[in-house]
Amino acid sequence: MLIVKKFGGSSVANAERVFNVARIITEDYKKGNDVVVVVSAQGDTTDDLIDKAHEITKRPNKREMDQLLAAGEQISIALLAMAIGELGCPVVSLLGWQAGFRTNTTYSAARIKRVETERIRSELEKKRIVVVAGFQGVNRNEDITTFGRGGSDTSAVAIAASMKADLCQIYTDVEGVFTADPRKVPNARKLDEITYDEMLELATLGAQVLNNRSVEMAKKYNVEMEVLSSLNPVPGTKVKEATNMEKMMISSVAKDAHVARVMIVGIPDEPGIAFKIFSRVAQAHINVDMILQSVGRDGTKDITFTVPEDCGAAAVAALQEYADRVGAKSLTYDTKTAKVSVVGAGMETHEGVAAKMFEALSEKSINIQMISTSEIKVSVLIAAEEADRAVSAVHAKFFDEM
Amino acid sequence: MLIVKKFGGSSVANAERVFNVARIITEDYKKGNDVVVVVSAQGDTTDDLIDKAHEITKRPNKREMDQLLAAGEQISIALLAMAIGELGCPVVSLLGWQAGFRTNTTYSAARIKRVETERIRSELEKKRIVVVAGFQGVNRNEDITTFGRGGSDTSAVAIAASMKADLCQIYTDVEGVFTADPRKVPNARKLDEITYDEMLELATLGAQVLNNRSVEMAKKYNVEMEVLSSLNPVPGTKVKEATNMEKMMISSVAKDAHVARVMIVGIPDEPGIAFKIFSRVAQAHINVDMILQSVGRDGTKDITFTVPEDCGAAAVAALQEYADRVGAKSLTYDTKTAKVSVVGAGMETHEGVAAKMFEALSEKSINIQMISTSEIKVSVLIAAEEADRAVSAVHAKFFDEM
Repeated sequence: MLIVKKFGGSSVANAERVFNVARIITEDYKKGNDVVVVVSAQGDTTDDLIDKAHEITKRPNKREMDQLLAAGEQISIALLAMAIGELGCPVVSLLGWQAGFRTNTTYSAARIKRVETERIRSELEKKRIVVVAGFQGVNRNEDITTFGRGGSDTSAVAIAASMKADLCQIYTDVEGVFTADPRKVPNARKLDEITYDEMLELATLGAQVLNNRSVEMAKKYNVEMEVLSSLNPVPGTKVKEATNMEKMMISSVAKDAHVARVMIVGIPDEPGIAFKIFSRVAQAHINVDMILQSVGRDGTKDITFTVPEDCGAAAVAALQEYADRVGAKSLTYDTKTAKVSVVGAGMETHEGVAAKMFEALSEKSINIQMISTSEIKVSVLIAAEEADRAVSAVHAKFFDEM
Repeated sequence: MLIVKKFGGSSVANAERVFNVARIITEDYKKGNDVVVVVSAQGDTTDDLIDKAHEITKRPNKREMDQLLAAGEQISIALLAMAIGELGCPVVSLLGWQAGFRTNTTYSAARIKRVETERIRSELEKKRIVVVAGFQGVNRNEDITTFGRGGSDTSAVAIAASMKADLCQIYTDVEGVFTADPRKVPNARKLDEITYDEMLELATLGAQVLNNRSVEMAKKYNVEMEVLSSLNPVPGTKVKEATNMEKMMISSVAKDAHVARVMIVGIPDEPGIAFKIFSRVAQAHINVDMILQSVGRDGTKDITFTVPEDCGAAAVAALQEYADRVGAKSLTYDTKTAKVSVVGAGMETHEGVAAKMFEALSEKSINIQMISTSEIKVSVLIAAEEADRAVSAVHAKFFDEM
């Protein structure tokens, strides 16, 4: 069996943890598996390197930034390889370019074009464990590129896809994907399985278990992923194509507190309003999530929408000139809101998910400010201070009754 | 003019020093020169990385150690390139493999086979300053190799030799090569020029201004070097082929306190003694420097020799079995000795250098334990506590009288 394992920076933060990871790897290797390991930079290394760059300049050249940051994984792969060697197993570490990661030339957010796996294959044929630097590759100019935060997940899936690995295991500090945040909801249960689409919805909702690009790639190439703990050796959550999961209506309740709500009140009720507003927001490179447009009243209407928390001020700035010109009554934003969502592939074939969610909130007298839905998701915007209570109520409604 | 500049780790230890170095570089660039810069890892980075490896294992795999250490220069070249960019000059950083350093496969002490300079040339044609990671290259398997301590000097000379640069400037924390250690001898003078051979003798004498391999390579390819200060912008010392330096009898007085003296007393006075002793020492990979063999007395003789300070115990261990077998009276070593040398290409054509040196020591009642000479050097072994006094006396004898 060919297994790709990915370990994040906190899993290799010091010598003790490096050995913990080395033991997980060598156990699977000793069972006769071919093992390719993808590892991130240790602990705070990447942040420390960014600080060093910022001591030099506020706007570091992006090519040089990638050259700098790639040193982080170079350190962690060498140390992990040393530890695996110390445990008596043959091993070799490979940088992104040595492992064949060819990317485009978009520094700091490079896209993988292909993985030329000859070197990895030849090392596996020599019965070596292969430790690969995540997050990094090389472009056609032979310059180092990096994939952006969370890019090591993508590295792991790209190898698994290119080599048709049997499993791509993503080790984290949680035991898997839960029906809700287990730190907040004591009844939260670990899921054995979840679909790619559910995982994607959860990732966009702020449940940062897996990097989104990696899940998209896994879905595209049908790579079976598993999210599991590097500290607690129990089975995790498999991420795969939907099989017999229909019986489960929803898989998870998630909260995203990093939301800003932008309100523009009293604008003329005429055609093209939405286009005029959201084209300006898009030009400012701000992603809009939920949108609410009021019914026209006195010849005016109100538009409310949500953006990432740190984009609230920028969204207002992007609209100020327009709001002044059309004589809007007010243009404001606030960040005292949170989005609570239920996600589940089963939703498509089960009616009443939204109604059941609204019922749970109603029972707790929690006011809903906005609503948005997709095929496998229902999200509501509520006051931030009620978010945890809302998650518990919704979770209880769906899971305690099943 | 094509200039290669090399800066050591202390010259780029923090952001302020990085900018200092960047200013030196951009000044020469703005004069219209092509500038290639070789830089070492920042300050203690290399030692920190070695410590990290030793937390994992006492005997790190050498390939992985090179993979690890090469991250050090990766960080410094990126930061220096950012600083040069911040000063408004076009720049690109290149890792050893990107800059074309092809080496053999001897990890941790790799030899440069060639520098494939196409990339450097094409970057210079684009009018960019090129910042190259010293100390590292890549072998035929595409694995990272490093050149050992001081290897960045060699990187700089290798580029200068391959590209027929007009000058290879080695920046250090001293202003050049002095007639003696200026911290010990107030009258010490900076030399304008010194020959390759003199520089090589000085390096082996413990005056660690330049890495020896780099001077050997510079001599072989006739690369003109200059040793100068990164902190004080004054002309340094040129290292080149002898020209009109004959008038100067000696160029420098040097001290090496890191010497151990090994004494084997009362061994049979028969042919082959020296071979038997020094073949054993060589098998223990210990370099012998000075050798003194007493005249035979009572059918026995004594042999005394010097080795690097930290090899004294190992040399005794290597000889113990032999000494016991032939019934030597004693086999001991001590490290309370120092070697003081005068070096000068002019010595070949000037008589009486040794005599003048001995006169200086005699006037100060300093006892000479051993003597060794080469074409351009006279060395004496004396008691360690008299070494500084000896250097001053010899320096005064040669330089204050000129």
